Amino acid sequence: MRNLDSQETYLSDMSGLALELRDLVGSGPNPDQAYLPPYGVVGFGEGWWAARLARRWLNHELTPQGTQFVLEGGYDLGEALGAGLYAEAGGAQIVRLGLHENDEVIVAASALSPYRYLRFLLLATGQPDELARVDQALLAEREHLRPEVFTDRNPAKFLAYNLLERVPLWVVSERYGGLAAALQQTLARIGKSLSITPPPSGLEFFVTALEGSFPGDGEVAKHQQGNELAAVVIGDDERTRLAVEILEPRVDTVIELPKPPVEGLLAESLVYWYRVAWASYYLALLKGIDPGDREDLANLREAT
Amino acid sequence: MRNLDSQETYLSDMSGLALELRDLVGSGPNPDQAYLPPYGVVGFGEGWWAARLARRWLNHELTPQGTQFVLEGGYDLGEALGAGLYAEAGGAQIVRLGLHENDEVIVAASALSPYRYLRFLLLATGQPDELARVDQALLAEREHLRPEVFTDRNPAKFLAYNLLERVPLWVVSERYGGLAAALQQTLARIGKSLSITPPPSGLEFFVTALEGSFPGDGEVAKHQQGNELAAVVIGDDERTRLAVEILEPRVDTVIELPKPPVEGLLAESLVYWYRVAWASYYLALLKGIDPGDREDLANLREAT
Repeated sequence: MRNLDSQETYLSDMSGLALELRDLVGSGPNPDQAYLPPYGVVGFGEGWWAARLARRWLNHELTPQGTQFVLEGGYDLGEALGAGLYAEAGGAQIVRLGLHENDEVIVAASALSPYRYLRFLLLATGQPDELARVDQALLAEREHLRPEVFTDRNPAKFLAYNLLERVPLWVVSERYGGLAAALQQTLARIGKSLSITPPPSGLEFFVTALEGSFPGDGEVAKHQQGNELAAVVIGDDERTRLAVEILEPRVDTVIELPKPPVEGLLAESLVYWYRVAWASYYLALLKGIDPGDREDLANLREAT
Repeated sequence: MRNLDSQETYLSDMSGLALELRDLVGSGPNPDQAYLPPYGVVGFGEGWWAARLARRWLNHELTPQGTQFVLEGGYDLGEALGAGLYAEAGGAQIVRLGLHENDEVIVAASALSPYRYLRFLLLATGQPDELARVDQALLAEREHLRPEVFTDRNPAKFLAYNLLERVPLWVVSERYGGLAAALQQTLARIGKSLSITPPPSGLEFFVTALEGSFPGDGEVAKHQQGNELAAVVIGDDERTRLAVEILEPRVDTVIELPKPPVEGLLAESLVYWYRVAWASYYLALLKGIDPGDREDLANLREAT
């Protein structure tokens, strides 16, 4: 097995994603004007999660007045340009953020662009204190996750070793909204790996989807679906505790990610995402794959 | 391998789920009064999908006037009883549908209860024609899916054979909203099997999550994640066509479910769901497992 504390393992990082991960805080476009409220935000492609997070402090998806932010984010097949969207926006100022040179705000394609979309929205809608909380939390977290920190004190490396040869099943408290799907997307984009998010009725799913692998049920075929699963648990409420109880005998391992020492759902969500982004980076290295984007993804963006 | 055209295979169906599947249309509670508009609907547990479907014709999640439907659906840890919910409902009449004896409308726990919640809502909100379209479509579909119809003309049996020893990856057109997660839940509940739904940026996910298994990339480790995947494709738009193009070289098999000969998103959604419910039933039989609920699920409902 490759060693994450050995320099030669990092030769696979041909695109230098470690530097982009390290220098994430503060990166991305800055607003160069004041935008009028009320604010609406919709997001597609790389921008969907930032748009969903922004709805914690912005009430509107579509606004007929003020400013309508459209996070295009690529892969959207022109949906972001849909006539319906702009008709509903009415007299609002439209601000498109995305990959295209005629967008008002350019956000380069990247696995890490969710942070950059979110950062722009926080600044553009008058939430600098919230952004400062997020940035401070990410900088503090970075000190634990960097390549220079050895595995025994690096939770991202530890997670990566645990996800090698296993399929993660994301068990995320509902208070974090779309985080599970964001982690699924990030593990794919950087770690080149599949993972599973449960449907809304998650506890029922955990009981039934892995039923065949429950120990001690003599008659039932042991189809052992849970054998290669790693449940990755985020959040600590009654629902996630019950999920752990259900999953422990059914999956190969349960990994509970510790709560970051920060205040606020937005900062917490971003810290979990950043941690999994680093873990995805290490997972790709453990597989000997470049964690950066490959050409077929650029081709897909061209085609959509 | 077990044979779905042989009677002895059906001995595993100890709870008689085939009868419940066959007699689904028209089952469930009927409204015994007229409910005042406007209508709001929220759903939890077994009721989440019906609530989401109902938002196609009901605009409100929460309404302070008229009638607030609350689909409790079990496994909700009291969320459906949350004080906030009822405070927001204000002066509206509250109609709780669910498993509890003090609910206004009792809907017994069942893998098939999404139909019953939906049926009640259609009747209670003055949509009998829409329900008739759904029912007619389901009855027509049933004639192809029943155990008496041999595998060579039975698409549900065909799908079940194809899902044995494979993990389904649901590729569902966005026009069907929450259908992918509903199918993931149903395959687990009846078929006792795991499946995968993609995050909102699905095309990016399909390219990256299976990157290592793409043929012809000499240097990259072939970790072969796609080897046991079956992409199950529903809908025929530009996005699903692109998904098929991306997935074909990356997964073991691509199964495109034919569009049912019905009009309307609601009827189409229900037909796809019904088809997968039957396929899940056959999949459990192929594994020699009872497709009915097990005791641990009832225990979970007690605990939540």
